[in-house]
Amino acid sequence: SCHKNQDSLLSSASGYSKYRGILNWCVVMLVLSNARLFLENLLKYGILVDPIQVISLFLNDPYSWPAACLVIVANVFVLVALYTERQLSKGSFSERVGCLIHCVNMAVLITFPAAVVLLLPSVTPVGAASALSIYTILFLKLYSYKDVNLWCRELSTIKVKKLSRSLSCPSQQHFSGGDCKVSYPGNLTLRDMYYFVFAPTLCYELNFPRSPNIRMSFLLRRLCEMLFFTQLLVALTQQWMVPIIRSSMKPLEDMDMSRMAERLLRLAVPNHLLWLMFFYWFFHSSMNFTAELLRFGDRQFYNDWWNSETVTYFWQNWNIPVHKWCLRHFYKPLLRRGFSKIVSQSAVFFLSAFFHEYLVSVPLRMFRLWAFMGMIAQIPLAWFVGRFLRGNYGNAAVWISIIIGQPFAVLMYVHDYYVLHYSSHSQASPH
Amino acid sequence: SCHKNQDSLLSSASGYSKYRGILNWCVVMLVLSNARLFLENLLKYGILVDPIQVISLFLNDPYSWPAACLVIVANVFVLVALYTERQLSKGSFSERVGCLIHCVNMAVLITFPAAVVLLLPSVTPVGAASALSIYTILFLKLYSYKDVNLWCRELSTIKVKKLSRSLSCPSQQHFSGGDCKVSYPGNLTLRDMYYFVFAPTLCYELNFPRSPNIRMSFLLRRLCEMLFFTQLLVALTQQWMVPIIRSSMKPLEDMDMSRMAERLLRLAVPNHLLWLMFFYWFFHSSMNFTAELLRFGDRQFYNDWWNSETVTYFWQNWNIPVHKWCLRHFYKPLLRRGFSKIVSQSAVFFLSAFFHEYLVSVPLRMFRLWAFMGMIAQIPLAWFVGRFLRGNYGNAAVWISIIIGQPFAVLMYVHDYYVLHYSSHSQASPH
Repeated sequence: SCHKNQDSLLSSASGYSKYRGILNWCVVMLVLSNARLFLENLLKYGILVDPIQVISLFLNDPYSWPAACLVIVANVFVLVALYTERQLSKGSFSERVGCLIHCVNMAVLITFPAAVVLLLPSVTPVGAASALSIYTILFLKLYSYKDVNLWCRELSTIKVKKLSRSLSCPSQQHFSGGDCKVSYPGNLTLRDMYYFVFAPTLCYELNFPRSPNIRMSFLLRRLCEMLFFTQLLVALTQQWMVPIIRSSMKPLEDMDMSRMAERLLRLAVPNHLLWLMFFYWFFHSSMNFTAELLRFGDRQFYNDWWNSETVTYFWQNWNIPVHKWCLRHFYKPLLRRGFSKIVSQSAVFFLSAFFHEYLVSVPLRMFRLWAFMGMIAQIPLAWFVGRFLRGNYGNAAVWISIIIGQPFAVLMYVHDYYVLHYSSHSQASPH
Repeated sequence: SCHKNQDSLLSSASGYSKYRGILNWCVVMLVLSNARLFLENLLKYGILVDPIQVISLFLNDPYSWPAACLVIVANVFVLVALYTERQLSKGSFSERVGCLIHCVNMAVLITFPAAVVLLLPSVTPVGAASALSIYTILFLKLYSYKDVNLWCRELSTIKVKKLSRSLSCPSQQHFSGGDCKVSYPGNLTLRDMYYFVFAPTLCYELNFPRSPNIRMSFLLRRLCEMLFFTQLLVALTQQWMVPIIRSSMKPLEDMDMSRMAERLLRLAVPNHLLWLMFFYWFFHSSMNFTAELLRFGDRQFYNDWWNSETVTYFWQNWNIPVHKWCLRHFYKPLLRRGFSKIVSQSAVFFLSAFFHEYLVSVPLRMFRLWAFMGMIAQIPLAWFVGRFLRGNYGNAAVWISIIIGQPFAVLMYVHDYYVLHYSSHSQASPH
């Protein structure tokens, strides 16, 4: 027979649930929509990509390299930290003096580049941001270095008391070749220090896990990815981000709400794609490249944050080196000192907020607290998502907060920077 | 220990494959992109939705309803078909005469409305398209009606010869109530004929499967969907489609290729969404509504075409009533007459192409063969996709052909219609 009793597939009664094709539909629609935007952009603006222009972001004057000089000076702090630890291990410095020197060293480490950037007008914002990022990473590394060496001394003191003999014999390492375990204070060498400084981790350990050899094909593939994504990031920023940001200035100045919302959504797509590319470029390509070069074994630089169903899970998994550092050197010590979980967690967000603000405000020479507030806003957001949204809804909420939150902060800073630097000129010119 | 030997998740060596969050990402990105487009459109054009304007699409002069009159006249053809079948069942007409009357009836059925539309200028394109669609559906239904009744007569002749007694006793139905099986020629009643005319199927059967009762909540939900989607379709067409089509006229006239491609991609998204809504409105809401009202049991009006990995699968599953008709009354008879599969399949595409062209060209009073060629192009496309693409790639290819192919044809017709009706005026005005 030609007909028989049956329900339509889309009726709830049919129990049908195979929608694999819908995923393909989503992908096709995304590609086509963006192909259209790309074509529209090209027709409207022509080709704006200009690799030479990138250099001018780092340098004002080709004969002075202030940011590069700053990075070279950073070595001084590394050497001071190593020297202090050596004196501590020999007992020449008491724990108190050592702690004081470390504190002064790290306080200078974090304030000195900021002062240079704020006082020296020849430092460009991009150059300053790069230098400050390196100083921030170094700060976290040296803090970890100090902590771990302190723990080693504490441990050996306990062992000496317990077993009446020291397990940490410096001559041991000398006799048993490079591949064997190093023990305190045999780790206090220049070579070990600089391995840690360049290694893609923020947590110091006496014996890092090492990969057996350098795989050349892996290294080359990561290098190609790095070069390709660098080009793509620069090209997309110039071709896609800059025109949108330029056209957003007028509505932002007029505080035209509906147009601002439109510009925000328009900026969200390229900003998000650039962030995804940056993530892959930095956390996969660059870090794996460095790790392969240094035969560093632990390649867990990120976890599956794309599946995160809570805001907390996202922050714990998208940047594993920072997460590990926070857990080991900030969150757990706070818990040990008797603070509650919620206070310690909030403190981590505050610390993160401070460094976000530090890395944005100082290079722009403009203190607006948007980045700080953006990070602090994660605490109520995490509470809301964790409390009310589950599963895929939670995941969608995390995505929306990433996609919308970032361009919001970007627009805020760009607007303030524009008002500060250009608006006064344009108002002055009619006079 | 803080570190251990492990690969990054995105390295191929890690064997990681959980990307559920990426699907959510796609959905979020699609929603946000379209929210942005929606806002941009509102800011650019204001609110263009105007329900009153819709009426003017159906009527030029509120005192003459040519399309509605055409639909009423259609009853004549239904009655002629029923009368012919009755005479045939009684033996008053020979098979030859019956076939001739049916052929003339259906030839007039398909040419008469076309002639009226082409000769009467008061018929609007939308009104004409609606009337012609109804005539086309009626044509397919009456063809099926004729075929099935012929098969019944052939079957009973064979049975008479074999068993020397007729199983098809007309008095049987008379005694055994309405719910029992009807047998030929007991089906040749006005009531049975009109049930078939209104039923959501194109294939006639003596005994359709029936649902036990009318579920009021189901009926109301489908009715609400119908009303809601009608509003939405009209609103989106006026607000989204029309401005894009208007702005495409200039590039199309100038044959500016890159701008035409941009407009095509820009049109593709709203056109595709409207088509999806139309699909749901017609094949799910309206057909289920009619079926529920008539207690028609077979609700398979569409199959899972969204998962189709070949073009053929798509055409076999998105419109089940037409597919069933083609299979039963065109494809299988052709096979029985000794044609090969590939020839019969191509013939089905040609028939479909003819009706597509008929439904577009006649209402627009403009013969351009774009719709015809669009359908014919499915044959090489089906071959290409079936030959070279598998699984999700095939599915993506089907989606792309749907998303891009339709707006291409739409733009072609709109362009030709515009050139024919408006371009000459605008060129004449400067004189």
